[in-house]
Amino acid sequence: MCQLLGMNCNTPTDIVFSFTGFASRGGLTDHHSDGWGIAFFEGSGVRTFVDHQAAVHSPVAELIKQYPIKSQHVIAHIRKATQGRVTLANCHPFVRELWGRYWVFAHNGDLKNFTPALDGVFRPVGTTDSEQAFCYILQELRKRFGDTLPLLQDMRAALAEIAAFIASHGTFNMLLSDGSALYSHCSTHLYYLIRQHPFATAHLSDEELSVDFAEVTTANDRVAVIVTQPLTDNEVWTPFLPGELKVFVEGAVA
Amino acid sequence: MCQLLGMNCNTPTDIVFSFTGFASRGGLTDHHSDGWGIAFFEGSGVRTFVDHQAAVHSPVAELIKQYPIKSQHVIAHIRKATQGRVTLANCHPFVRELWGRYWVFAHNGDLKNFTPALDGVFRPVGTTDSEQAFCYILQELRKRFGDTLPLLQDMRAALAEIAAFIASHGTFNMLLSDGSALYSHCSTHLYYLIRQHPFATAHLSDEELSVDFAEVTTANDRVAVIVTQPLTDNEVWTPFLPGELKVFVEGAVA
Repeated sequence: MCQLLGMNCNTPTDIVFSFTGFASRGGLTDHHSDGWGIAFFEGSGVRTFVDHQAAVHSPVAELIKQYPIKSQHVIAHIRKATQGRVTLANCHPFVRELWGRYWVFAHNGDLKNFTPALDGVFRPVGTTDSEQAFCYILQELRKRFGDTLPLLQDMRAALAEIAAFIASHGTFNMLLSDGSALYSHCSTHLYYLIRQHPFATAHLSDEELSVDFAEVTTANDRVAVIVTQPLTDNEVWTPFLPGELKVFVEGAVA
Repeated sequence: MCQLLGMNCNTPTDIVFSFTGFASRGGLTDHHSDGWGIAFFEGSGVRTFVDHQAAVHSPVAELIKQYPIKSQHVIAHIRKATQGRVTLANCHPFVRELWGRYWVFAHNGDLKNFTPALDGVFRPVGTTDSEQAFCYILQELRKRFGDTLPLLQDMRAALAEIAAFIASHGTFNMLLSDGSALYSHCSTHLYYLIRQHPFATAHLSDEELSVDFAEVTTANDRVAVIVTQPLTDNEVWTPFLPGELKVFVEGAVA
């Protein structure tokens, strides 16, 4: 299994604090050491850092901890291989373009006998069940909505259906974003919290590190953080219900 | 205009030496300071680093200079904006998936009145003429060859035609790779060299830096380097002919 971290904000925010705790699970406080990746939207552009080394030993992860890239939509993943070899092509997040936007996807879980017919527009490069599921999602969205990005409520309804179908094949906790919204589906475990005014101090569960967010934010900032396991030990994380799809826009549940 | 750097090798090789000279042109020895990017194939996987900061000031470029990622196919680009704003979505190289492979593309030049009909499978995210040309290339390849990667000679013939058509709209020096071959088209200026046994010392034009490749290679290694302007001042760089398409496989002209 793997772990997921997503962030959705109303103002570009760096993820250094959360990523520091998260990356510790990539080989230090937990055993997810078969590669990792993180994608940052900046406007419509996206940059993705992936590495097949354990996050705790990766020079690229060190860069991310030092370099405060500011983004409104971030998706990160650390991998414990269940299907597919430990290789760069199997590292999440995966990125494809649809409707002139980049889509970023990461998955936690394990799908059994999930071999959907892929008609050729989106095809996996690696050998994971996760990338197959991602290609299937984009194919189905394109089939339903043609050449145009639909309204948010239509996307939500379509994704809820598609995710439920995929989840009928196994565990399907996932994060998906096109740089305008962050879609998250829980099959077994996913938690979120919203940080907003008045901000307080947060303390990581996996590292001896605290941040007083009141010092680094303005009163208007709002940040949603979505994770497979809570990252801090002094904040209230809300669990998703099994089967629930939540959409985050501008740092709030939409 | 921009600058291009490509590398194609018969064994995974790091690009630290060439990239160090190349990155100096991103704001130090030359004025290409509107962002930069580099993509490395590792097997069928690819990792792309892009930054809209000048390469000489970018912490990500610093990482690339320090972290010897070994790859058989590398494409790098430093940008001097001619069309499209200075934004991450406009940074080369661009990446798309076709036939279950990643395709990486970077362009030097300027296209005039190039607005091909794009039927929806590949659409630009940013606003550059370059990304339009890339989407057009993939669309045309898919149209000609359906769902299957063709033989190298068929790819070469198709790309020569497509590139010639695009180049009729302006300057089109470009590098394209799917991790099995590196395709390069020259419209005005592109140079290459092959480094192979017996290896010698190379000295950068843009930095006081030399490498004795005999010390860091084996007798079987072969590396092709393709650039818009020669990177070293003591090696012989072969210019492409205008209109020429060259294909590199395993560090040699195929």
